Amino acid sequence: MDIESSIHQMGRQAREAAYQLNQLSTEEKNAILRAMAAKLRESCASVLEANAKDIAAGEERGLSVAMLDRLRLDEDRIEAMALGVEQVAALPDPVGQRMEAWQRPNGIRIEQVRVPIGTIGIIYESRPNVTADAAALCFKTGNATILRGGSEAIHSNRAIAELLNSAGAPVHAIQLIPFTDRQSVAVMAGMDEWLDLIIPRGGKGLIETVVSLARMPVIKHYDGICHMFVDRDADLDMAVELAVDAKTQKPGVCNALETLLVDVEVAAEFLPKLAVVLRAKGVELRGCEQTLTIRADAKPAIEDDWDTEYLDLILAIKLVWSPDEAIAHINRHGSHHTDAIVTANEDTAEYFLKAVDSACVFHNISNRFADGGEFGFGAEIGISTDKIHARGPMGLRELTTYQYRARGEGQTKG
Amino acid sequence: MDIESSIHQMGRQAREAAYQLNQLSTEEKNAILRAMAAKLRESCASVLEANAKDIAAGEERGLSVAMLDRLRLDEDRIEAMALGVEQVAALPDPVGQRMEAWQRPNGIRIEQVRVPIGTIGIIYESRPNVTADAAALCFKTGNATILRGGSEAIHSNRAIAELLNSAGAPVHAIQLIPFTDRQSVAVMAGMDEWLDLIIPRGGKGLIETVVSLARMPVIKHYDGICHMFVDRDADLDMAVELAVDAKTQKPGVCNALETLLVDVEVAAEFLPKLAVVLRAKGVELRGCEQTLTIRADAKPAIEDDWDTEYLDLILAIKLVWSPDEAIAHINRHGSHHTDAIVTANEDTAEYFLKAVDSACVFHNISNRFADGGEFGFGAEIGISTDKIHARGPMGLRELTTYQYRARGEGQTKG
Repeated sequence: MDIESSIHQMGRQAREAAYQLNQLSTEEKNAILRAMAAKLRESCASVLEANAKDIAAGEERGLSVAMLDRLRLDEDRIEAMALGVEQVAALPDPVGQRMEAWQRPNGIRIEQVRVPIGTIGIIYESRPNVTADAAALCFKTGNATILRGGSEAIHSNRAIAELLNSAGAPVHAIQLIPFTDRQSVAVMAGMDEWLDLIIPRGGKGLIETVVSLARMPVIKHYDGICHMFVDRDADLDMAVELAVDAKTQKPGVCNALETLLVDVEVAAEFLPKLAVVLRAKGVELRGCEQTLTIRADAKPAIEDDWDTEYLDLILAIKLVWSPDEAIAHINRHGSHHTDAIVTANEDTAEYFLKAVDSACVFHNISNRFADGGEFGFGAEIGISTDKIHARGPMGLRELTTYQYRARGEGQTKG
Repeated sequence: MDIESSIHQMGRQAREAAYQLNQLSTEEKNAILRAMAAKLRESCASVLEANAKDIAAGEERGLSVAMLDRLRLDEDRIEAMALGVEQVAALPDPVGQRMEAWQRPNGIRIEQVRVPIGTIGIIYESRPNVTADAAALCFKTGNATILRGGSEAIHSNRAIAELLNSAGAPVHAIQLIPFTDRQSVAVMAGMDEWLDLIIPRGGKGLIETVVSLARMPVIKHYDGICHMFVDRDADLDMAVELAVDAKTQKPGVCNALETLLVDVEVAAEFLPKLAVVLRAKGVELRGCEQTLTIRADAKPAIEDDWDTEYLDLILAIKLVWSPDEAIAHINRHGSHHTDAIVTANEDTAEYFLKAVDSACVFHNISNRFADGGEFGFGAEIGISTDKIHARGPMGLRELTTYQYRARGEGQTKG
């Protein structure tokens, strides 16, 4: 069978599996998830063996040290995967939850109930743990999954998928595409009759490719160009702590701070305090012209700096004359991910939170709290920068849709 | 300026307008909507004059009588448009509603609040009333709209949009694309930086075109291939009434019944009762082989009949041996729109409602109740056959997204 027919057949099988999954109770799903975790632990050796092949091939292909590190599994990482699957088992099941219920004047009783989406395609790159994470989240929510991982991790992914599939799940509930060429992405993206949703997990290039090919909805996890605005009414010591945390606590992640906006009225007092701490942490500052008049040691920022996700120890700083200027800058240059204001003025804070067009808007806390775990979701499949269906941290609930169930006693329209 | 630059400029303007709209209170939006309705009434003559040009051009181009009827406006239809806009003004505003709120152990207070989506593109065909309907629904929910109607209605659409824009809305909140060629659809579909969502309202061809071109999410309103399953435990008189209502009360709409599934155990008693009434209403029956043994007067159904939305006085009938066979047929051949079961057996009903993968699943009521009005939504922009973001009847709430607002006292992650 050619690649196209073979992937389409997996699609048909996924649709059938979704109907089987929809019949499982929460208890049945949880028991299977726990069995998956047990299989991962028991057969850890088979995964490590497969992973060794990927690592050897990666070294031969000259993958970077960082890439090899993302690819590498050890007993601890497999234990973390198993724990992750168990944590998903322990979470409340959104499927079957009643969202709303009401009765119409004609006696018809309508109920809006959360149900699985159906079939979900996950396209990802080199981290093999995504195979277990994504499959567990989709399984818990009653969705059949088609996984398409990167070529570097193919042996590891196959070994993990095989273990997950040996734990009693309905056949074809979790399928891994055995092809890793580009055509397989194009085939998946075209089969909207079999896949209800695609979630790409990876770099901008991968997401762009999927978006331009996909006929079905895609939930995107783009960059985080996150801002913090230090208002004239801010507690400046708090602002220093928050900016330092947001920039330096883990600079390589999407909710790290990239651009700091400071009200000119407090800049002369605030920037020196901040610079002392940031310099000690090795952060490079890139300032607008006004910033440079206060901090001559900063590098001049160019226009591109306002649109860059550094993911590094670099901070762009711009002075603004008002909250409105800060808001306009964020809405124009941000990636609508997570933006924060530091102020003791409640009115300014509320005005800012409402006007900033981002998934997460924060008052007096660090941007780094934009995270499914920190929100209490227990697990997340990613942080959506889309506005449709799911925005911000995506937990189990965002992997469901709903259905209207209406009951009556023979009511007719005519 | 060429078409592409010109439409991109409208996109930029829509984005700016969305930020203005987001600042309006519910009262301000409602006052503007009522002013729009007043303008439509006051300047009814200018719309009728523009419409006369479209009708004359349509007659010259040889449009069908049905097309000309969809296109034609008169005082009553403009009054209906104005009333529709007033009804939208009277509905509760979902924007600003708190969906959830909780506190984390670290003291951070998180709130999930409904906010406008931002900018919405509506691509539609010949009915000029869509201009007012869609613009009002989007305006009420704080979204800026870019409307692209069909060439047949261009004069009417322009006249209506001009009146809507003379009622005090922020500039560019409602924009009508002045081009009606295919390129304008392609340009809209490509500008995902300016449009957060596209909703095509029209036939399958239009939707398919938009889906294959669009880089942003599209909410689709495809066919309604709706089923009713008459279970062995059905009250057969009720089943006759429901099937007749669902098939004949308004056969040309998406929630009309197209295929009737009947349990073999009751078919011999049920089908003759049903056929008497349907024949009197002029309905043509197309039956499976087993049906023909009971109703020799039915035409034999071919395989295509199970996948056809007749929108006409034709009913396909198939006998099944179990609820599971009915469910499998619906999930395979239906369009996941609205499917009903008639039965006095509560267990069978609940099993069916859960297993059928459709936006609306009904027990002992006519399929014709699948409608935003009948659900009590007050107004609808359509009935989504998608599963992502909005499923089934789409009211005002489905034209919003949400934002997480989190507040603290200087919490840091590190």
